[in-house]
Amino acid sequence: MFRTSNCGDLTISNVGEIVTLAGWVSRIRDKGFVLWIDLRDRYGITQIIFDEKRSSIEFMDKVRKIHREYVIQIKGKVIERESKNPDIKTGDIEILASSLDILNESITPPFTIENNTDGGEELRMKYRYLDIRRPVIQKNLLMRSNLSLEIRKFLVSKQFVEVETPYLIKSTPEGARDFIVPSRMNKGDFYALPQSPQTFKQLLMVSGMDKYFQIVKCFRDEDLRSDRQPEFTQIDCEMSFVSEDDVLNEFEELIKFIIKKFKGTELNSFTRMTYSEAIEKYGSDKPDIRYGMEFGNLTKVARGKNFKIFDSQEVVLGLSVPNGANFSRKQIDSLIEFSKSHEEGANGIVWVKYNKDKTFKSSVDKFFNTKDLSIWAKILVCKPGDLMLVISGQKTEVYKQLSLLRLELANRLNLKNNKEFAPLWITDFPLFNWNEEKNGFDSVHHPFTAPKDEDLELLDKNPNLVKSKAYDLVLNGNEIGGGSIRIHNGNIQRKVFKILGLSEKESNDQFGFLINSFKYGAPPHGGIAIGFDRLVAILNGNESIRDFIAFPKNNQGKDIMLNSPSSISKEQLEELGLKINKPYNK
Amino acid sequence: MFRTSNCGDLTISNVGEIVTLAGWVSRIRDKGFVLWIDLRDRYGITQIIFDEKRSSIEFMDKVRKIHREYVIQIKGKVIERESKNPDIKTGDIEILASSLDILNESITPPFTIENNTDGGEELRMKYRYLDIRRPVIQKNLLMRSNLSLEIRKFLVSKQFVEVETPYLIKSTPEGARDFIVPSRMNKGDFYALPQSPQTFKQLLMVSGMDKYFQIVKCFRDEDLRSDRQPEFTQIDCEMSFVSEDDVLNEFEELIKFIIKKFKGTELNSFTRMTYSEAIEKYGSDKPDIRYGMEFGNLTKVARGKNFKIFDSQEVVLGLSVPNGANFSRKQIDSLIEFSKSHEEGANGIVWVKYNKDKTFKSSVDKFFNTKDLSIWAKILVCKPGDLMLVISGQKTEVYKQLSLLRLELANRLNLKNNKEFAPLWITDFPLFNWNEEKNGFDSVHHPFTAPKDEDLELLDKNPNLVKSKAYDLVLNGNEIGGGSIRIHNGNIQRKVFKILGLSEKESNDQFGFLINSFKYGAPPHGGIAIGFDRLVAILNGNESIRDFIAFPKNNQGKDIMLNSPSSISKEQLEELGLKINKPYNK
Repeated sequence: MFRTSNCGDLTISNVGEIVTLAGWVSRIRDKGFVLWIDLRDRYGITQIIFDEKRSSIEFMDKVRKIHREYVIQIKGKVIERESKNPDIKTGDIEILASSLDILNESITPPFTIENNTDGGEELRMKYRYLDIRRPVIQKNLLMRSNLSLEIRKFLVSKQFVEVETPYLIKSTPEGARDFIVPSRMNKGDFYALPQSPQTFKQLLMVSGMDKYFQIVKCFRDEDLRSDRQPEFTQIDCEMSFVSEDDVLNEFEELIKFIIKKFKGTELNSFTRMTYSEAIEKYGSDKPDIRYGMEFGNLTKVARGKNFKIFDSQEVVLGLSVPNGANFSRKQIDSLIEFSKSHEEGANGIVWVKYNKDKTFKSSVDKFFNTKDLSIWAKILVCKPGDLMLVISGQKTEVYKQLSLLRLELANRLNLKNNKEFAPLWITDFPLFNWNEEKNGFDSVHHPFTAPKDEDLELLDKNPNLVKSKAYDLVLNGNEIGGGSIRIHNGNIQRKVFKILGLSEKESNDQFGFLINSFKYGAPPHGGIAIGFDRLVAILNGNESIRDFIAFPKNNQGKDIMLNSPSSISKEQLEELGLKINKPYNK
Repeated sequence: MFRTSNCGDLTISNVGEIVTLAGWVSRIRDKGFVLWIDLRDRYGITQIIFDEKRSSIEFMDKVRKIHREYVIQIKGKVIERESKNPDIKTGDIEILASSLDILNESITPPFTIENNTDGGEELRMKYRYLDIRRPVIQKNLLMRSNLSLEIRKFLVSKQFVEVETPYLIKSTPEGARDFIVPSRMNKGDFYALPQSPQTFKQLLMVSGMDKYFQIVKCFRDEDLRSDRQPEFTQIDCEMSFVSEDDVLNEFEELIKFIIKKFKGTELNSFTRMTYSEAIEKYGSDKPDIRYGMEFGNLTKVARGKNFKIFDSQEVVLGLSVPNGANFSRKQIDSLIEFSKSHEEGANGIVWVKYNKDKTFKSSVDKFFNTKDLSIWAKILVCKPGDLMLVISGQKTEVYKQLSLLRLELANRLNLKNNKEFAPLWITDFPLFNWNEEKNGFDSVHHPFTAPKDEDLELLDKNPNLVKSKAYDLVLNGNEIGGGSIRIHNGNIQRKVFKILGLSEKESNDQFGFLINSFKYGAPPHGGIAIGFDRLVAILNGNESIRDFIAFPKNNQGKDIMLNSPSSISKEQLEELGLKINKPYNK
């Protein structure tokens, strides 16, 4: 036993007790005749006091040899503090040390071990084991642990069974983003790491497991965006004998439960919105509905007024910025600049100030009179004091441009409230989208997604019009989950594979086991997968997931602490029956 | 909503209700005028009744088109059964069907979906999704799910934090049994899959996480014995500021909690035994202590009696078989045969019957008189009616031979009580063992294991005598867990690497990040890893782990349902910068 209490334990009620503590030296204050150490562990900080009156000089000298981040063991008596610290649990007491043992020494850390550290991202990642020593990161990991346990308890209480599915699965020729794993016992053959346990959870439904879940790592070998990791954690679920509503209701309840438990907020029923509606209103299938600024379509009313730019374009869309009428010319120019600068850049923005005095001032005063602009204001739900921003162009582009502008406005106007949680379901996604490059259809979600019953006939005639039983869960503008009711009928599954351009042979090679299983009584089923890393981050009001992953990789998929990935020996390659090829330079 | 109740829900209290059920047709009995279907799902079986009196002929004809494993939906009225079935929860009622929908059809399954199936292992694995449909396998998976949740709840209540460590880690030149994963973004470089999260959990202790756990998949690319899997699940734990006793006590409590919770058995304090003692008594470091038959050393008393075989050998060891005096000659010969047959084969067995009338009858009557044999009986704790079996030879071999004989006797005499749980801790393992092939030392556990404090000086002088702070948890003759107090001092760690034959460069290349972390105040720490697959199996009185894994692989590491591992395309290999080498034939 190295300690009788931890550094977050002791309070005024322990005064007089003889205790042993162990932990890290967080801070040392030396006033000569008296010396304090802040001793830190995961549970808190306890102040240790040494003074000339009550400690021997030899002892004081020994204490002075200690530095920051030394691991020490202290024995002493709990006494009441003279100047209390109401900010910490142990703030009423301190330990008058009677003995001290150095359990381990420390050289000076490369950055300060405090919530507001002076270490940059790169340095913190290289010394991640010191970074995690910062209470803020420990808190994140602790919250993640508690969250996963509460989710498990909730799902098990709903009769879900956690089933571990394999990590070494079948590699498929089309799984271009699969990580592959060479087999030593079967040279020349490969396993793949799962991008998700999709087929396994469907097999478990065929197995009659009825309700499955797993909190599970998934893998994707793709170029990483700033907030993606090659390995990530998913709350993966599947249910039998359910329709879309059943899945949505069950997981809405889960999210409500989590947010109540961890944030104390009671949520109302989640908004449900079809994909088309989301695009119409927000130009996005993951709208942040914490703030308004819904789009309005001005195409009909804005054309035919001799403004050539509008007259020549497919659509004219706008939104209303609350209290934007007092924007300066500079502010408006900067928005126009923003809108031009990015990839989906707009040609220009028409702006209309609807002043408090109900007059209009716009960049198109020559073409549109007060009556015209009043009609715009009505469509865009623009109130006096607001600003209308209008973009015209090719339909899909304008939706994207206006959506980006809306997000930018929310940032600039500080409309995102981190304490607010605004979830919504997006439903009725299209089943396919057209891939110009391959000149064929792709699945919008994945090939196991069921078409809407009423669209089944369109599968043969007009696949691009088929809507699906897919749904996404969006929280504060982030897609945190998605799923669908699956196809459980072999014929429909084969038809979908065909539309996707998979030959009978290809679909059998890749998914034969699943198609086969459907011959033996597959129940209707569906499910969802929720991104756990992102969920933890958003619950903590953070949009970056890295601070919620113990050992994340960087944008190049590298772990700079481990220096991984790295080379392996010739012998190892030989045992696997492999050779390094000269990198193929395009 | 496909159902209002599941197939395990309804009891006599529901009589009169109109319900909807969905599930699989488990059995059909057709008496012409009346027809029953057993409808099955994960929750149970409910009997559905159709009869001529109350159902139309068209309806009965429709029902007759249904076959085994069809997925159907039934609407009907709950009625009281005439002949009740007390063996199932729903045995008092049946459903008088008013409508029936076929949700999916099924061809005839390749084996019967019943607890006692006619399907062989190979067939069951190929159709694992049907195998899992058998209630016995569902029960196993359900138990596994509950067990993992209870373990998590227990550990979290003890302030352990579940931290997910990475799966894509650093490959090391010496990690010959690592599965490796080529990186597409960093061509020619590789990740490895972890054999365990060992180094990460130690880093988490350096991080001050204090108490870590994870229920986690681990990977080992080695030739598989019948009861090994290339991927397996571990309950992985680590604690700071602990000594051996602290770890043993904490996890003893966990095991007691589990066995109480799932088996209703209150266990006493676990036996603790040093490695040497285990070898002396049972010739094994994972003895099954549910039955006696401890070894006795007869070397001193059995030599010098002109029995040349004994006189010429290093040791003479024996054990006493309870009630073995009535073994037939044939039974004894068969034991001798067994002992010769296996790899570690003994030359012969000397047997001594200690008859109920206190006379002796032995295979060495010529050399040993009653007085001699009485002394043997005393040493081997042999009572009248028992049988002594004695083997002589080279020390380590005799221990192995007698240990195997003991296990065989337990099987033949049916001494293993599946309802009994006999855990014990084995402690004080040697730190190193000598590897003849490499002509150097190996770690008995792993290179991070701490030597006993009192043996620190021996590290330089006599490494083979150094004992370690390692411990194994043994349950009913199976090693279900193991761990140690770790080295937290960089100097000792470096010394151990050196003894293991790792150069400074090699140890830095492989473990530099860990050695480095020790410079920044590593706390004393230690931990344990428990094999979760085996634990579930043993708790269910089963020694094979496959029936407790949803999708296991076979002895060749293959998933015969998926047909995995399999080949990948040339393009995929090219993208990874790899080439298949012609298999290297030795």
